[in-house]
Amino acid sequence: MAGNTFGTLFTVTTFGESHGPALGAIVDGCPPGLPLDSADMQPDLDRRKPGTSRFTTQRRESDEVRILSGVFEGVTTGTPIGLLIENQDQRSRDYADIADRIRPAHADYSYMHKFGFRDYRGGGRSSARETAMRVAAGAIAKKFLAGQGIRIRGYLQQLGPIAAEVLDWSVVETNPFFCPDPAKIPEMETYMAALNKSGDSIGARINVVAEGVPPGLGEPIFDRLDADIASAMMSINAVKAVEIGAGFDSVEQRGSEHRDLMTPEGFLSNNAGGVLGGISSGQDITVSMALKPTSSIRQPGASINHAGEPIEVVTTGRHDPCVGIRATPIVEAMLALVLMDHFLRNRAQNGDVTSPTPVLPAEFPQKS
Amino acid sequence: MAGNTFGTLFTVTTFGESHGPALGAIVDGCPPGLPLDSADMQPDLDRRKPGTSRFTTQRRESDEVRILSGVFEGVTTGTPIGLLIENQDQRSRDYADIADRIRPAHADYSYMHKFGFRDYRGGGRSSARETAMRVAAGAIAKKFLAGQGIRIRGYLQQLGPIAAEVLDWSVVETNPFFCPDPAKIPEMETYMAALNKSGDSIGARINVVAEGVPPGLGEPIFDRLDADIASAMMSINAVKAVEIGAGFDSVEQRGSEHRDLMTPEGFLSNNAGGVLGGISSGQDITVSMALKPTSSIRQPGASINHAGEPIEVVTTGRHDPCVGIRATPIVEAMLALVLMDHFLRNRAQNGDVTSPTPVLPAEFPQKS
Amino acid sequence: MAGNTFGTLFTVTTFGESHGPALGAIVDGCPPGLPLDSADMQPDLDRRKPGTSRFTTQRRESDEVRILSGVFEGVTTGTPIGLLIENQDQRSRDYADIADRIRPAHADYSYMHKFGFRDYRGGGRSSARETAMRVAAGAIAKKFLAGQGIRIRGYLQQLGPIAAEVLDWSVVETNPFFCPDPAKIPEMETYMAALNKSGDSIGARINVVAEGVPPGLGEPIFDRLDADIASAMMSINAVKAVEIGAGFDSVEQRGSEHRDLMTPEGFLSNNAGGVLGGISSGQDITVSMALKPTSSIRQPGASINHAGEPIEVVTTGRHDPCVGIRATPIVEAMLALVLMDHFLRNRAQNGDVTSPTPVLPAEFPQKS
Amino acid sequence: MAGNTFGTLFTVTTFGESHGPALGAIVDGCPPGLPLDSADMQPDLDRRKPGTSRFTTQRRESDEVRILSGVFEGVTTGTPIGLLIENQDQRSRDYADIADRIRPAHADYSYMHKFGFRDYRGGGRSSARETAMRVAAGAIAKKFLAGQGIRIRGYLQQLGPIAAEVLDWSVVETNPFFCPDPAKIPEMETYMAALNKSGDSIGARINVVAEGVPPGLGEPIFDRLDADIASAMMSINAVKAVEIGAGFDSVEQRGSEHRDLMTPEGFLSNNAGGVLGGISSGQDITVSMALKPTSSIRQPGASINHAGEPIEVVTTGRHDPCVGIRATPIVEAMLALVLMDHFLRNRAQNGDVTSPTPVLPAEFPQKS
Repeated sequence: MAGNTFGTLFTVTTFGESHGPALGAIVDGCPPGLPLDSADMQPDLDRRKPGTSRFTTQRRESDEVRILSGVFEGVTTGTPIGLLIENQDQRSRDYADIADRIRPAHADYSYMHKFGFRDYRGGGRSSARETAMRVAAGAIAKKFLAGQGIRIRGYLQQLGPIAAEVLDWSVVETNPFFCPDPAKIPEMETYMAALNKSGDSIGARINVVAEGVPPGLGEPIFDRLDADIASAMMSINAVKAVEIGAGFDSVEQRGSEHRDLMTPEGFLSNNAGGVLGGISSGQDITVSMALKPTSSIRQPGASINHAGEPIEVVTTGRHDPCVGIRATPIVEAMLALVLMDHFLRNRAQNGDVTSPTPVLPAEFPQKS
Repeated sequence: MAGNTFGTLFTVTTFGESHGPALGAIVDGCPPGLPLDSADMQPDLDRRKPGTSRFTTQRRESDEVRILSGVFEGVTTGTPIGLLIENQDQRSRDYADIADRIRPAHADYSYMHKFGFRDYRGGGRSSARETAMRVAAGAIAKKFLAGQGIRIRGYLQQLGPIAAEVLDWSVVETNPFFCPDPAKIPEMETYMAALNKSGDSIGARINVVAEGVPPGLGEPIFDRLDADIASAMMSINAVKAVEIGAGFDSVEQRGSEHRDLMTPEGFLSNNAGGVLGGISSGQDITVSMALKPTSSIRQPGASINHAGEPIEVVTTGRHDPCVGIRATPIVEAMLALVLMDHFLRNRAQNGDVTSPTPVLPAEFPQKS
Repeated sequence: MAGNTFGTLFTVTTFGESHGPALGAIVDGCPPGLPLDSADMQPDLDRRKPGTSRFTTQRRESDEVRILSGVFEGVTTGTPIGLLIENQDQRSRDYADIADRIRPAHADYSYMHKFGFRDYRGGGRSSARETAMRVAAGAIAKKFLAGQGIRIRGYLQQLGPIAAEVLDWSVVETNPFFCPDPAKIPEMETYMAALNKSGDSIGARINVVAEGVPPGLGEPIFDRLDADIASAMMSINAVKAVEIGAGFDSVEQRGSEHRDLMTPEGFLSNNAGGVLGGISSGQDITVSMALKPTSSIRQPGASINHAGEPIEVVTTGRHDPCVGIRATPIVEAMLALVLMDHFLRNRAQNGDVTSPTPVLPAEFPQKS
Repeated sequence: MAGNTFGTLFTVTTFGESHGPALGAIVDGCPPGLPLDSADMQPDLDRRKPGTSRFTTQRRESDEVRILSGVFEGVTTGTPIGLLIENQDQRSRDYADIADRIRPAHADYSYMHKFGFRDYRGGGRSSARETAMRVAAGAIAKKFLAGQGIRIRGYLQQLGPIAAEVLDWSVVETNPFFCPDPAKIPEMETYMAALNKSGDSIGARINVVAEGVPPGLGEPIFDRLDADIASAMMSINAVKAVEIGAGFDSVEQRGSEHRDLMTPEGFLSNNAGGVLGGISSGQDITVSMALKPTSSIRQPGASINHAGEPIEVVTTGRHDPCVGIRATPIVEAMLALVLMDHFLRNRAQNGDVTSPTPVLPAEFPQKS
């Protein structure tokens, strides 16, 4: 209820602050029998962790995750999985001078009004460092879903003014931006170098795709698959907008243009983004989102302190000049958590052991 | 868990199909002592109901709501409020010939895969007729919030290619489109007349604004105010995208441009859309969303039947050529439900009787 | 959260007051494909309804339930089932003179403190009339569970000083007390006649048994099957104590006596009452509970009014002299709701279509 | 949903197995501003921990708890509190020979059916060692409630055949049994010594009382205060029965005897146990429960192994001969968690900063 748990049947509850001793999570509801090791989580944690290129914060964290429970003799037991990552490179002294200063576009002002005070060390709970636990939990979901033939992959579609024009999955993991367009990578490097020098930051657009999703996942009214995806994405720090399928292009589309016609061989287009009536259609689920530019920048800006006096804020700590750059693994993790949860929900409703969807009428076209 | 309940402390659970005997809802968690009468709900139900102009479906429903419980001597008792609207103008025969035909862009295909069969009469549960109950429940939330100085208003920002350029609240309720730009109303009328003739449909963009929201509403991690708003909006039939504040414009914004600077008198801009770190900032909450064009159109389209054979579908029932036109009251209702829920959540955490926010340090600038 | 919903995957949300226009419920999460008609619910409603013998209240209610949604062409659709029972025989005038009087042992005093006021007509929401909706919802669960080979039956074990000594299921439904011991029925009739004359009331003990429950239902820590059963039973008006299996006899038992030994043919005793470590063992689930005597009696008693002045209260309306007499169907319904919910939870976890339990190692003794 | 979370607004989610590396918990929903240190939890952990007398298991665990998050500068921040206790004295080798043997009255058989396999080391998740985290979390609730004038205390009412006849709170903490009757302590010592020698175990009855609870806590229908208490107590390992107030004595009581009459000075008796209509009345909340005898005993017993063959089981590890002896702190913790949760729920509904109950009519007798 205090908002630190995600999911209904497959739940992730996280704790921890940017500059506290550790981050942790409890993953509950994982079916028994899934082979699981911390090595299943480490690759995604490494993709997200800071300090891996000169375009991200230089904070050094190994982000090594320990499994404290829920796994016995190499497989999940069906009991809660406790996860722990110890913080290593807190420099809380960086923050002493902002203890009573409201940083613009941060959570400082709203946290003060919610809680009456705030942990000013690196943003405390509001830091995106919390997302490390989501990535760890998401890796468990990803592994389960992979066993069901579901693959989830994201990429950086746009970095400020530079948009990818080509989607070449083979290059996404070979550059620090998760950019899928090889021609745009040098452009992004040049852009980021200049941005760093200027002491400013920039926004980004991230896309994520889930392939192999069986039709039938999602609830009809409130817990629609698209509603849960929108919530999951908007819960990521800095995300300000979410689209499914054609998204905002739908505004100017006619019905005859938007609707995805069908033949016995399948759909002829995917404006729906894989979701019809809140429920997966078996097509690829396609999601796109906007991340705002990092709020912590070196350029001075007007603000107030806790006494309500005007001040000028300059943020000098270690920060990502574009939070979108490290967001791809987080976005994938959140989509995995949503799909995992609805996969289990469907099993409760339909009880089929091999697929989460019910037995269709004999003549109905089965999903191959 | 089956997705028919919205909210955590202030919950709305709905039931009912487009062509069943009735729609209903249970509103639970409403604080005791709120004066309430069905007349508080009827105006919003009338704004949403079909058949009020030639630009919406001609189905005739009075949508009169009855309060069956939870109100005693004119005020809420703190116990669940039972609401009922009887359906009056079902023409289920219109649907007999689509009983085994998959209509493109409808929920037919995904419902078949989720449930194994479907109620084909007017889409059954997937019909937007269900939103009548959301509007009724939302009116209760609106009334409570109004007593706290919070006002929620929506409008049609764009109808297909025609975008409002002026926001004149005084005209929104005077035209069938909820269009805030008086100059664009005749244009919209002409456009819709031609669209009707062509047997096609069109998408729309709806905006909604909440004024007077106290700072401090929302949870820091998963149940962020913006995440809950995104989920609420995406749960409305036909919505394909949601933005908060600057939304997708954030992608190309620099940090120095996006951040909302502050002075002792308040914020200097509102790119955040009233939400910082998932928590309200006290600024107006601004939300925008895309609604896809109605899927039920007279123009024929390729599809399949339940036997997997190719067919051509023509939809002849009574349908809205632009579902966005009647969406404004629904959008307002959903935003009201989200704010109401977080208002109560904050009271649980902070316990202040006059405001949902905690007692701030004496010198901290209070929200006037 | 306001406590009107029971269950997690199979949920029942009820509304309605004793003297309002109607009672209602939404049953959500029922799997699609279950044949369902109001006739499936009416028998249990008739077993519970008032006025069927001279030993219960003489209020006349037909308690006819209408299904308003969720059933199409005779089977459940997987969408929420709306249920409605209209009240017919309210005599609210009976209550005008207690509007500002606190009745001892009723919810009057605690409701005043919770809500600030109360619906004094027949106790409003605190009336056991609300349980009619639980019985209706429980009948749906019972029907589903019957298809899985699970049978749930209750009986009156003790009426005040008169305890059944024989458990003869064949007589339980043939007498107004649900008494299983034919020899004790005349005794109970005589006792109740004298009690009625004295203007007093009496407590009772009800037992309920679930046969055919598969092993493996329940969660290990908090949502144990026995914990959920205890909560379900204690949520019934007037219940003050709950036992599973040996119950309070366990206090004086030695481990060598209490433990249920096993052979390849099964358990040799059932002190556990069918629950081990919070999870069903496949043995009969046996539950026993105490219901306090009706609080509404004709004998005068000291109390206070809303002004805090001493008064003498005499309750003259129509009341059951022993609430335990009509409790058997309610108790069965609540146990059915608990088992149904855990049945679906297990399907989510294990995904087996024919049984809610996972595939055991080949050599492990299967439940026959 | 997998049952490792307790509460709705104040939630505790636990993880960890008896012989895993650590136990942990996340306490979410604690209001900000509560001074908190691990020293606030240690005394209750020490009261529960093993090895403090010769009448409990000789496993050596310091049960030192670390706070990993949610506390900043000595006070809670309103964000989740991460708690960790490392296991120190696992002797998993003790369990190798029971890896494929079903121990009677343990969770072995039911876990096999639920999960398909089990962690046989000390019972894994089914071990009462998990309750250490409940005690830690309960200590936070106790501290908060103490600030509201609420005190929660438990004691051993009966050890097998030996029942306390005197309730002298001053001796409860001075003997290893939490026995409140000084005359019975030597008797208990003698009894336990003989029991240990015989290789058997014994049941117990524990009582717990909450004083200073404001009237108005609890929900009217399903989440009644007594229903939540029953669930909380029955979720404790070995508990088989729960009573509130007069409990099973209610069966033979008449209404004129059971009802607690009132005068302007207050109630004249407390058969209700402090709960009327599911809601606290302001009287002491009195709860009593039965704990079955420890299942792990040295006396041989018939059972089966995983291959379904008959075997004889002798349990040789380190075990408590009476689990009731260490249960008092656990029982107190669970009652504290229930009251804390309902305290916050009432604040959400009523919003009063100083008390969780609403503003009563001016003339209504206030709770002093």
